[in-house]
Order: sequence, then structure tokens, then C-alpha cells
Amino acid sequence: MNKNSSNIMALVPKTSNKRETVCIFGTGDFGRALSHKLIQSGYPVVFGSRSPRPSSLIPNDAEVLSHAEAAQKAAIIIIAIQRQHYDFLVSLEETLRGKVLVDISNNLKINQYPESNAKYLAQLVPSARVVKAFNTVSAWALQSGTLDASRQVFVCGDDTEAKQMVMDIVRALGLTPLDQGSLSAAQEIENYPLQLFPMWKLPIFLSLGLTAFFFFYCLVHDLIYPSVHENKDYSFFLAMTIPNRICPMMALVLLALVYLPGVLAAIIQLYRGTKYSRFPDWLDKWMLCRKQLGLVALAFAFLHAIYTLAIPIRYYVRWRIGDQTISQALNNKTIPFDNTKGWLSDSYLALGILGFFLFVLLGITSLPSVSNNVNWREFRFVQSKLGYVTLILCTAHTLVYGGNWFLNPLSYRWYLPDPYMLSLIIPCIVLVVKSVLILPCLDKQLTRIRQGWERNPQYSEQSNYIINKSAL
Amino acid sequence: MNKNSSNIMALVPKTSNKRETVCIFGTGDFGRALSHKLIQSGYPVVFGSRSPRPSSLIPNDAEVLSHAEAAQKAAIIIIAIQRQHYDFLVSLEETLRGKVLVDISNNLKINQYPESNAKYLAQLVPSARVVKAFNTVSAWALQSGTLDASRQVFVCGDDTEAKQMVMDIVRALGLTPLDQGSLSAAQEIENYPLQLFPMWKLPIFLSLGLTAFFFFYCLVHDLIYPSVHENKDYSFFLAMTIPNRICPMMALVLLALVYLPGVLAAIIQLYRGTKYSRFPDWLDKWMLCRKQLGLVALAFAFLHAIYTLAIPIRYYVRWRIGDQTISQALNNKTIPFDNTKGWLSDSYLALGILGFFLFVLLGITSLPSVSNNVNWREFRFVQSKLGYVTLILCTAHTLVYGGNWFLNPLSYRWYLPDPYMLSLIIPCIVLVVKSVLILPCLDKQLTRIRQGWERNPQYSEQSNYIINKSAL
Amino acid sequence: MNKNSSNIMALVPKTSNKRETVCIFGTGDFGRALSHKLIQSGYPVVFGSRSPRPSSLIPNDAEVLSHAEAAQKAAIIIIAIQRQHYDFLVSLEETLRGKVLVDISNNLKINQYPESNAKYLAQLVPSARVVKAFNTVSAWALQSGTLDASRQVFVCGDDTEAKQMVMDIVRALGLTPLDQGSLSAAQEIENYPLQLFPMWKLPIFLSLGLTAFFFFYCLVHDLIYPSVHENKDYSFFLAMTIPNRICPMMALVLLALVYLPGVLAAIIQLYRGTKYSRFPDWLDKWMLCRKQLGLVALAFAFLHAIYTLAIPIRYYVRWRIGDQTISQALNNKTIPFDNTKGWLSDSYLALGILGFFLFVLLGITSLPSVSNNVNWREFRFVQSKLGYVTLILCTAHTLVYGGNWFLNPLSYRWYLPDPYMLSLIIPCIVLVVKSVLILPCLDKQLTRIRQGWERNPQYSEQSNYIINKSAL
Repeated sequence: MNKNSSNIMALVPKTSNKRETVCIFGTGDFGRALSHKLIQSGYPVVFGSRSPRPSSLIPNDAEVLSHAEAAQKAAIIIIAIQRQHYDFLVSLEETLRGKVLVDISNNLKINQYPESNAKYLAQLVPSARVVKAFNTVSAWALQSGTLDASRQVFVCGDDTEAKQMVMDIVRALGLTPLDQGSLSAAQEIENYPLQLFPMWKLPIFLSLGLTAFFFFYCLVHDLIYPSVHENKDYSFFLAMTIPNRICPMMALVLLALVYLPGVLAAIIQLYRGTKYSRFPDWLDKWMLCRKQLGLVALAFAFLHAIYTLAIPIRYYVRWRIGDQTISQALNNKTIPFDNTKGWLSDSYLALGILGFFLFVLLGITSLPSVSNNVNWREFRFVQSKLGYVTLILCTAHTLVYGGNWFLNPLSYRWYLPDPYMLSLIIPCIVLVVKSVLILPCLDKQLTRIRQGWERNPQYSEQSNYIINKSAL
Repeated sequence: MNKNSSNIMALVPKTSNKRETVCIFGTGDFGRALSHKLIQSGYPVVFGSRSPRPSSLIPNDAEVLSHAEAAQKAAIIIIAIQRQHYDFLVSLEETLRGKVLVDISNNLKINQYPESNAKYLAQLVPSARVVKAFNTVSAWALQSGTLDASRQVFVCGDDTEAKQMVMDIVRALGLTPLDQGSLSAAQEIENYPLQLFPMWKLPIFLSLGLTAFFFFYCLVHDLIYPSVHENKDYSFFLAMTIPNRICPMMALVLLALVYLPGVLAAIIQLYRGTKYSRFPDWLDKWMLCRKQLGLVALAFAFLHAIYTLAIPIRYYVRWRIGDQTISQALNNKTIPFDNTKGWLSDSYLALGILGFFLFVLLGITSLPSVSNNVNWREFRFVQSKLGYVTLILCTAHTLVYGGNWFLNPLSYRWYLPDPYMLSLIIPCIVLVVKSVLILPCLDKQLTRIRQGWERNPQYSEQSNYIINKSAL
Repeated sequence: MNKNSSNIMALVPKTSNKRETVCIFGTGDFGRALSHKLIQSGYPVVFGSRSPRPSSLIPNDAEVLSHAEAAQKAAIIIIAIQRQHYDFLVSLEETLRGKVLVDISNNLKINQYPESNAKYLAQLVPSARVVKAFNTVSAWALQSGTLDASRQVFVCGDDTEAKQMVMDIVRALGLTPLDQGSLSAAQEIENYPLQLFPMWKLPIFLSLGLTAFFFFYCLVHDLIYPSVHENKDYSFFLAMTIPNRICPMMALVLLALVYLPGVLAAIIQLYRGTKYSRFPDWLDKWMLCRKQLGLVALAFAFLHAIYTLAIPIRYYVRWRIGDQTISQALNNKTIPFDNTKGWLSDSYLALGILGFFLFVLLGITSLPSVSNNVNWREFRFVQSKLGYVTLILCTAHTLVYGGNWFLNPLSYRWYLPDPYMLSLIIPCIVLVVKSVLILPCLDKQLTRIRQGWERNPQYSEQSNYIINKSAL
């Protein structure tokens, strides 16, 4: 392609193909990967190295010079060396004056140093224009071209022009630059690739703990009790029956735990009579991971739905139904249709289906691309109104499922209530307290508080102090 | 963190942390919430107020001055007061010359004033540079940090540099600025947070109305008729059976209504012989909400799928099957396998499953993040070709489901046809008309018309007039 | 709206509504559609034409002049003519000096010309500032306003200011400009609208081929064999039974094919002792379409799940179960519950459900908006770790489903093994090789190689040569 156009190119004085030389300090793995990519995109590349001798690892097209020589050849210098070795740059201060230094470094731990690597670089070479970029891209992915994951490159820096130059290179490499503002954003950008689902930790540990508890409870209730009292071996319940008891309980409890902190916050605000005092730390953390809690709950609800729909395919279920039919046929009797049972069975299924449907809807609206397309009023409508309707439907589903078993002594094995009863405790508390909170008298006061009214203004001085302290 | 780095900072002359003072006019709820957030992000804040005295509600770090004094201290002034009180700004004209005024106001109604608040502000203080921003962010969410919803801040303004300054602040607060162009976009930005799913209104009201109609029809057909004629109580059908009759009918009718306007538009274009004349208003509105119609149809199809898969778990179904088996066993007879029934049952299930699968595919491709990643040709291929295949499959599913009931007089209760027959009317019309339209003779002409050819050029003058009128 | 504000407007000297004139060269379909839209957005439009006479097709508000006259009236000129007719622009060189020329052209084939149309334009009129834009928008969609698909307009150009001017127009028309960098991006932008799912071709043809193979295999095994040997007519199996045998096999094989190239790449790297040599072309292509392969596999898994859950509704299944029950009742015997069967049935269902759940999770994380929100470490964790767990679960699901049939001679009809056995070959190979590769000794060496270590540095010279050649 380029070959064909080369003779035309010669006629054109200022071609866009002629890209500016890029200098790379450091011949390590990432520097080399970036150099290959840059050369492929048409950038002349020059390496700056302590020991400037050609290496078989470095592309033939790239020159390898001393740091100072290399720096003089380019306006943009990519610092592909580790923070510990930045000090020598101080001696190059004069050469680097006005140059764009691209800090691509990462640390091994979150907040490893008091200031970000990029800011540290800017302090060492104050005459240069430092831009943070490329640290979120994997060297291996860059070279192999298998960028299935994010093509986003976070860029930040104090100099707009320098940032623009780096963003042009990012685009030329087929990546998407994202302007994150001034260099003070570098700390966050450097922490980013070290995280492994930070917002998901609490929800996942919480649900693992709860799952373990429910598992052992069900084990005792559904497996050990029958094997002791009736000498029956239901061990195969471990594969389908017990998971399908745990999943709905987990889904219901976790969904209720999504709405519990909001209720607690309202109570605290009503009690304190102000919105300007900070919530306790645990409540703040809880509120920030509500979305993740809800999605874990949805995962459990999804599993529950498939487990339930697969029930009629199970050999055990087919055998039991066949066995009952045969014994009725052999005893020559037919059982008449029970209208109440028909109502109960159909209503708890219908409630569950509708609850699951709304749950899925909530999940879809929490997809980033969908929630970015709704305004604040629409988001609140969906997540709050629809969320509570979902909680009501799912709680009702569980209540009707139980039917009149609550009063049945057979369901209390070893004085333990049936597991599903446990799962109803938190949802019922949330729904009762919420229905009290929306009484006009309380709701009106809460609205006033949230609009800034204070029962006791002196309280807020203290709270402002707290906020300011955290802002230091 | 900042403490540790402070002694290093002292050595550096131009630190990026030193942010410019921001002035806020108005000490109301939003102004205070914004000030907290700004102070946390390192911006010195000064308030401009009619009554400049320190208040317990205002952060201690923020100064409170008169409007004129405050304005002199900052290059950016956030106008956190209501439009009705903007007039006093005229008297500050000289102080505000060249300053960036950020209009964050919202109205109570859509298009409340002839011009947007931001443009009104620009007219009052023509020497200032007005930028619209922040109006889509909730004060409460800003302060509590629970920005689960959109972090997008729409920004518009006529002065590029002023816009850039405001966008830098937006980014520093951890939000995402979205440049919407010049100040004339402010009207739309101000209307945005007042909307509650505007595109969804028509589809939702339409489906509510249709659902009510089908519900009463099914009530008469499936509940009242048997209770009158056979004295049977099927009231529990209300929970599962009747919803599972309504859902598939709604899904099919709504899906057909997605493709009906396209067919009507083609007929109108063929009849008029031009594409330059405007469609009637109702058709325009209908065409604009096709995506939403389709998604509501998908929701009904999803409910239908789960309702159907849950059928074998229902107590009623289990009882009926058991009852039939027992009575056969007692009568000592076995019914041989009916091959036709086997074919019919399996084909309508298979058609339904494939139709549902394509329907889900259509739904996924309409997710914003997916549809943004396909080009126009791909989008048309999916939404048009795949959409019609879906419609054909779903119509066939319903036709085969009915089997030879059409001719069965038993299905006409009180001379009312079975409900599913009603749901077939619109889809069949759409498919028949569409199959006529893709006949080569008509298709060729339609393509020519859509490429700009006109049978009767005089027609278009009139239509241009219409377009121009709307462009005034 | 504008009418009401017009008298206020008069008082304001510099109103933002007064937009700059835009010139359009060419009165074809796209030019006219764009002119309507521009006029609606408040831009004065002037047409440049070879035969400057008013036409009924052109909006009354727009002037039609000669090319030279029209060009003088505007700073921005939209070139809405085809590349073949660009030459006449050379004669206008002086008039076009410094003007912004917007190239909106598309080609009929991918890479039709050696250089992009935009670059060709820039070479013809080197004194003008060429910007590529609007080529991805459909003229019809632009005019009808039904922009359900992408509102993204790719913009590229060498002059930043010119690009900014064009992006402002894009925004004013209600579209989203996407800066793609310098003019050398034009080639890719021009190819974009010509593509029809380029990355999907290989996966779709592959799965069509495999589906055909499995279909005929199942046909022989499940339909022809019984009809020959037992004289039974199972032709209705074509609707549900056989599709539900093909879908799980396809899902499993395709999922294994997602992970096979990674395993092959590791073997090649271990064998060559370097990562700097290029993989064979077929492996590169295969690796680049892994995501699409995985999504096709998910589609088959989804179909399998619904087909399976719909089993109990089938007339054939109901009849068979009823028939078995009746014959047992008539023979007056009950079959005792088989614990092993209970375990087998429940475990393969549970394994399948969990596998499907993880599969759906993988699918959701591959949505663009989700994968853009995870960092590289998180993405690798999900796609690699979770992916292998999914493959293990699905393979185990198939193995347990088979149970002890492997040894059953009845399952070998005409010496053909049961189809599901075929589908296990590739997954088992992948899992066995992978489990060898994660042995500490091999894993350590592979990690070293991937970090840049080379067993035989001389090898890499050759490979660099290869890379450099491709970068020419």
C-alpha cells in the first residue's frame, strides 16, 4: 500500500505520514514492545540507554544512543524505566527542558509512594512537561495485538499541548486516549492496574460467608436429620436440591441488604436531624458497594431460576411422580383437585417470575452503557421504585412458597425452623421499616432534612469539622 | 499523603496541586454541596452572598464575601442561584467582564422559558463567558459520593477556553465532562434532567392498553365462559395461565407494530412517488419509538418464556397429568403415540425457541455500547433482516401452536375466537404487505425513490416548504 | 421558540445562534440531506455546482452558485462529490487556500485505492486543510432523523483547528464526533462502513461447517439407524431432539477452540524458546477472533439451555413418561429408586447449570461497556481463569451425562460412537495439554520467555526481520 503511494508522496511537501521521532529511555520489555508498535505506526524511534550498543532484541530500524543524544533527537521522551532509577534524569535537566516526558511506570503496591511516580518525575525535572500515560496497557498485549480488553489509555498532565501530543500518539497506535485532567490524577491512574475488583471484595466475602452458613444449616436440616431419624440417604441432594435452597435464600437476603443501608441512613438522618453529619464508616462502605451486592444477588437469583426450571428433568423428580401415580393407580383411588393448592402453587410461581423479571431489568439498567444514558431522575426511579417492588415480589414469593408451613410442627426439625424462614428476617425488617418511613409525617421531615434543613444547627459545626478534616 | 509530600512540594515552584480559586454565587443547597466537593479536590472556594456572614452550613475553609468582592477573587464564578434572581448580575457587569460564568440552574418544567437559562444569563452579562454545566448532577449525590448513576456532566458554551476550564474542574471532581458544543445546546441540557423516559411513554401506554384489552378478553373466554357453561372454577388461572396467554400475544403484536410503520412509510413513498415529502406526524412519532416498542415486546417474550418453562412445576399441571395417567391405567388402556401431534408439538416449541433466541439477539444489539460498535450497514442487517426473521418465526410459532384449532368450533366460545387468533392479525398483515413490497418491480422503484428520484418533481416543492417551515 | 426570543436577540451583539455559512460542493443525495439538516440546525448553506441553477430538490433557503463563488462564501466546504471527479478542484487551488475541506466520500470496495480519498484530496489541494468526516452516516438516516444506530461520526485530519470546526458542526447536528487523529486514519475510516462483521466471518463459517457435519452424523445415528434396524419413524426428532444434540456439542467444541490457540501459542513459544518470533498467520487470525468464537459458543449454549428446559413440555416426552407409568401400573410393579442414577442425573444437571452460568458471565464481561470498565488484570482474571473453569465444568457436564455409556456397545450404532463422544475430543485435549503447561517447570520457563528472555538470541534476529518487513 505504502509502496504504491510513495512516488506520489514525493511530490507532496508536507505529508501527514511523516511522524515525529519518539525517544524511549530504557530498553526493557515494555520499551521494546512500544517501539515495535510505534515503528509499525510510522514513528521513527530512538532509544536512550546507559550502554548504547545495538541489541538483537531492539528493532533494526531503531537507533540506540546515550540518554543525552537520544533526548536531543525527539520532542517526546517515553520514560520506560523504573521509578528507582529516575534520579539520573536530574543530570539531564538542561537537555530535557521543554521536552514532553511520558511516565509509563507502575508500582507493585497501591499507594506505594507518598506521591505518584509521574509527580515525582515532574519534581525531579521541573523544566520538562510530564504526562502520565500507557501504564494501563499490557506490554504483551501491545505487541501481540490481542487487545480484547480495554483499549483505553488514561492520560493526564498539567500541560495541555504536551497532553495533546501524547494523545495523538495513543490514537495512532489504535488505542483510545482518555483525558483524566491534571497530573494530580496520576496517583489514581497508577493505582488502577493494580486493583482486582476492589468494589467486589466486600460483597463476595459476605456472600461466601452467608453461603457457607446456609449450606451447613441446610445440610443439618435436609440431609443429616432425615438420615438420623428416618435412616434415608438423600446425599444426592448435594448436587441440586441444596444449591437450589441456598440460591434463593442468598438472593433474597442480599437484595434486602442492598436496601437496608438506605433505611439505616434515613433513620440516622431523622435521629440526628441533619444531613451534614457523616455516616459511620461501615455504613459509607456498605452504601458504596450496593450495586455489587445487587448484582451478586441477581447471580444467585439467576441460578435459582435455572435450577428450578430444571426440576422436572431430574431423575429423582420423575421417579417420585411416577411412583406416586402408580401407587394411586394400584390403590384404585384418584385424588381430587385442591383449589387452594392450585392457587398457592400458581401464585408463588407467578410472584417469583415477576420478581425475577424486574431483577433482570435492574441488572440491565446497571450496565454502564445503559445507566450512562438515563438521567438522575430516571436512574432513581428505576433503582429505588423498581428495586423496592422487586424486593416486595421476592419476599411475597418466599412467603407464599412457605404457605401455611409456618405453623406446621413438621417443618421444625430439631427445633430448627426451615431455612427459608431465616432468609425472610432481613427482607421483612427492611420492608416494615421502609413502610414506616414513607408515612407522610416522617417522609416530610426526611425530605426537609435532605434539602438542607437542620433541627439543631450546632450539630453541623461538628460535622463540618469532620468533613474539613477529611479534606485536608 | 499530602502531608508527607509537603516539604518536597516547597522546593517545586509550579506545583499542579495549586488550583485556582472558584467563586460560588449563592449559599443554597447545591452551592454548598459543590463547595464541599471542590474543597476536597483542592480548590480554594469563595462564596458571594447578599448577606455575607459566616454560616454553620458553609465549610469553614470557604470565605463568604459580597458578590462583587467574591467575583474579583476568581476567574470562574458558579451561579448557584435561581433564574428569577439573575437580574442583579447586570449591576456587576464590569466586575464580571471576561469572567467564566457557570450556569448550573434547572427549571421546573420542560421549555419553561423561551430561551435557556444559560442564554438568558449570557444576554444579561454579554461581557462574560457563559458555560452551562453541572445541572444534570444531583446535589445530594455529589455530596454523599454515591454516584452510581451517570457521572456525565454535559458542558456547553460559546467560548472554547472557558469551556475547557470548566471541563478541567469537572474532571477534577471525578466526573466525566461531555462537550455538547455551543451555548445553543443549553436548552436541551436544561430539559434533560426533567425527563422521565420520554421515548418510553407511547410504547408503555400502548402496551398497558393492549394488555387490559387482552386481559378482559381472556377473562371472558377462559374463566367466565367455563364457569357459566361448565360450572367450573378456574379462578386460579389468573396467576399463571392468563398471564401466559397475554404475554405471547403482546410480544407478537408489539413486534409486528415495530415493523408496521416501516411498511406504511414504504407505501406512502410509493404512492407519493417521492421521499421528500414529510410523513404524517403520527407516523414520525411511531417510527422514532420503534426501538422502545421492540424492547417492551422482548420483555413480554421473556416473561412468556419463563412462564412456559415453569409449566411442568405447576401443581395443576402435575395433578392433571397424573389424573389422566391414572384414569388410563384404571381403564386398562394405553393411547398409542400420535406422530402428527409429536411433529406439531416439537415444531411449535422449536420455532418459539429460535424466535426467542433471535429476539434476545436483537435486544443485545440494541444496547448502546453494542450498537455504537457496529457500522450502519451492520446495524441495518441485524435490525431489519434479523428482525423480519424473528417476526416470521414468532408468527409461525403461533400458527403452528394453534394447529388445526382454527377450524374447531369448540374454540369459538360465545362466537369469540380464541385470543391467540386476534394476536395473529397484525403480524400476518405486516408479513403479507412486506412480501408484496419486496417483489422486484416494487422494490426497484422504492430503491430509486429512496435514492432521490421523483415521479412528480412538483410535489417536492411543497414538501420542501414544509421542511423549511419547520426549520424556521 | 425562536420567534419569541427574536426581539431579545436583536439587543445582543454577538449571539451564538449566528452560525457560519457552510458550503457544499455537489447537489447529490447526501449533499442535499446534509443541507436540510444543516439548515435545520441554523447554518446558512450555499451549494457549489457545475450547473448553478435552482432545483426543486434543493432547499429554498440554500443558494446555488458556481464552485468558485460558493467556496468564497464559506470557511468550510463539504465535498459531496465522488473521488473520480475530484480533479477539477486543482483549478480552484487559490480559492481553496486555507479553507477546511471536508471529505465525506466512501468507496465501493475495501482498500479500493492505494491512498484514502481524503489523502488524495489533500494531495490535490495541498493549500487546503482536509478533514475526513460524515462518511459513516447514512444520508437517509440523517434526513429522516431515525438515527437508532450509531450517532458516532469519525473525524480525522492533520489540522487541529480545522478538525475542531468540523466537530462543532457534527455536535450541532446532534451527532457525536470521535477524533481519530491525523489524516492517515482516513483509510480505516473509509473502510469502516463497507465492513459486514469482518471479525465474525471465520467463527460463523466454522460453526456452519461443524453444524452441518454434526447434523448429518446425528441424522445417521439417531434417525436412519433406528428406521433401518427397528423400523421406527422418529422423523419429528428433526425439530427438537437433534437440534438439542447439535447445540451442546457445538457449544463445547467452540469453547474449546477458544482456548486451543492459546495452548498452541504456548507450545510454539516453549519450542522456539523466544516470544519475538511471529506466530504462523493462521494462528494469529485464530487468536484475533477468539472473542467472536466464544460468543457463538455462548449462543449455542443458550439454545441448548432453553431446548433442555423445554423438554418436559414436549408431547413426546409426556406421552413416553405416561406410557411407562401406565405399563408399570398394569404390570403391578414399582421400580425402586436408584441412588446412583439420582447422583448422576443431578450432578450432570448441576455441572451444566454452573457451566452455563459462568458462560453467561463471560458473555456479559465481553460487552464493550463492561470490558472498558475493568483493567487488564481483571480482564485476564475473568477471561482466562473463569474461562477455563467454564470449560472444565462443561466438559465434566458432558462426561457425566454420558455416565457409563462409553462402555455400552448399544451406543455404538454402525460402529459409530454416540455424537457427544466426538464433541469431547478437543476439550479433553485442551484441558490435558493445559494441565501439563501449568506444571511448575514449564510454567516458569514460559513466564521467563514472555518476560523477554530468549533461549537462543540468534533466533530473534530473524524474527525481528520478519516484524520489520511487515512494518515497512
